[in-house]
Amino acid sequence: MPEETKFDIAMQCPVPVAATESILLGHGSGGRMSGNLLRDIVLPALQNPVLERLDDQAIVNVGGSRIAFTTDSFVVKPLFFPGGDIGTLAVNGTVNDLAMGGATPLFLSLALILEEGLAFDTLRRVMESIRVAAALAGVVVVTGDTKVVEKGSGDEIFVNTSGIGLVSSDLQLSADRARPGDRVLLSGTIGDHGITILSQREGLEFESAVASDTAALHTLVAQMLLASSEIRCLRDPTRGGVSSSLNEIAARSSVRIELEEQAIPIREDVQGACEMLGLDPLYVANEGKLLAIVAPTAAEKVLEAMQLHPLGRDARIIGTVTDSHPAMVTLRTRLGTSRIVDLLSGDQLPRIC
Amino acid sequence: MPEETKFDIAMQCPVPVAATESILLGHGSGGRMSGNLLRDIVLPALQNPVLERLDDQAIVNVGGSRIAFTTDSFVVKPLFFPGGDIGTLAVNGTVNDLAMGGATPLFLSLALILEEGLAFDTLRRVMESIRVAAALAGVVVVTGDTKVVEKGSGDEIFVNTSGIGLVSSDLQLSADRARPGDRVLLSGTIGDHGITILSQREGLEFESAVASDTAALHTLVAQMLLASSEIRCLRDPTRGGVSSSLNEIAARSSVRIELEEQAIPIREDVQGACEMLGLDPLYVANEGKLLAIVAPTAAEKVLEAMQLHPLGRDARIIGTVTDSHPAMVTLRTRLGTSRIVDLLSGDQLPRIC
Repeated sequence: MPEETKFDIAMQCPVPVAATESILLGHGSGGRMSGNLLRDIVLPALQNPVLERLDDQAIVNVGGSRIAFTTDSFVVKPLFFPGGDIGTLAVNGTVNDLAMGGATPLFLSLALILEEGLAFDTLRRVMESIRVAAALAGVVVVTGDTKVVEKGSGDEIFVNTSGIGLVSSDLQLSADRARPGDRVLLSGTIGDHGITILSQREGLEFESAVASDTAALHTLVAQMLLASSEIRCLRDPTRGGVSSSLNEIAARSSVRIELEEQAIPIREDVQGACEMLGLDPLYVANEGKLLAIVAPTAAEKVLEAMQLHPLGRDARIIGTVTDSHPAMVTLRTRLGTSRIVDLLSGDQLPRIC
Repeated sequence: MPEETKFDIAMQCPVPVAATESILLGHGSGGRMSGNLLRDIVLPALQNPVLERLDDQAIVNVGGSRIAFTTDSFVVKPLFFPGGDIGTLAVNGTVNDLAMGGATPLFLSLALILEEGLAFDTLRRVMESIRVAAALAGVVVVTGDTKVVEKGSGDEIFVNTSGIGLVSSDLQLSADRARPGDRVLLSGTIGDHGITILSQREGLEFESAVASDTAALHTLVAQMLLASSEIRCLRDPTRGGVSSSLNEIAARSSVRIELEEQAIPIREDVQGACEMLGLDPLYVANEGKLLAIVAPTAAEKVLEAMQLHPLGRDARIIGTVTDSHPAMVTLRTRLGTSRIVDLLSGDQLPRIC
């Protein structure tokens, strides 16, 4: 069966949520099951054009200004890992969701759900990470909430951050703006965060030296936007990895995205870990990387701007937007063959963020 | 020992959080333990003047507009109860936190933490409640997030809503604005929500006919603000009840608040339930009531405006602000004696919202 047909069938016959009747871990994967849950249960109740854009942030008009608004809950396990912890992720993740809309991140909210019995020292460490990450990103936590649930009804600590930022009046970044000929830029190596979390999980014999890439990307975005006004769309490939972000863009823009495997930067140890664990790094979460869809004439200029920023040193052009098969992502492998990069079906890596 | 001395000692020697070393249910009560947790662990990491106002919402300047921003997580148990469910609470609670700052609520975010195994029908019911409550309140859910945790690491569904609203440029409402002579207004009966939740809890033999008062209060607030510009402060007495809200105002404004027990509206069945359960209704949560501190000359006018609104029909003037003992709330009982209405020490009612 030709690849495109297989993909078409999959798109036409996604696993309907009703068939499982209750929430599975895969519904939190950021892949196809997450998409189905949103489409079949969450979005029908909330129909409105802003939400249905499904960008990482909403951009709304408040008092004549364009305000970016976003929310994210963090349930990562373990709480602490090389490179960061749940507090670092909670600040950087929400800052990045604002930044992907081209917003200057300004204010965060912080809502904690604590499990009875959580050690104060754990909470203190998380709060200290939040303090440091917010200071580094230049955002201020201005409002908060704390709830406590009984032992066994939570898992130590869940963190929600929401954020607001300001978007300049002429900026339009959205997943539906990719056009044939556009280039796909990636800011650095993939899979570092996901492999770090996996390597820390109890029961895994593998222990890698890699660290989470968690970082606030808004100053990198600012440099890119200064370099060119022809950036169509930005995405941070977190849950579900590069695959999920690009599939979303391909579907929303009705384009095909063709990736070059050998152009995609990946650390050798992450590559090795993925092979050992049977994971495709395109599906592994990142917490300090971004993808940009950029007009062909501006791609080199934007790439240079990225490479001048510490968080974009390893940036590469990794692919091209074409019109040959709408709503599809393909990868030209190192061997010269081409394969479809489908949406993740289930949950490869639960509680990765 | 005279009452005031007891209170003074309590304020000077609150239970230090370090003594317990880990989170207890009481840290989520909205009372003294919650305050200590905030003061000793959460706030030190986040020092900034907006957060330290500890109002129900932050008011920040974005693009020249005054934006109210607030967040709340909901962990109520059971999920469904007479008068509403976790979805209704999540919308109305955040709308009310915005309204207490005098903001016009505009946009909400919605972040779900789902436990593996949650029935889709449960999620559908909650989403439908969110839809209806948002439509009634005139707010739009513009951004969201969904996470899934393993069975046993959550409790069916936790909901976080954050909200943004617009505040007019000349409005100043804050807990530090109460002045001697001001009147304390209450919009209706107390304890309905808390008693409803308690009556539904497994293991309680008591079953009351009362329903949660959950409601969006922003149109009531708009009527009040139209009636007078001399409203000092608004609070919705949710977790920790009327006692917590008024103690906060008394402390922040360095005033005493004297309540008249017989002026405080309470349903007969709620009163009966409180007596049966040994609860003081001043500590029981409400989800559709507000307290207002109003200048003496404006109190009657604001009261009339409240009574004309369906959610303020039973509004009363329930007390007065004085300068006799700063940071204290007292109650003149029906018997003519006076007692201190202290902050709740532990957790009377866990997971009430």
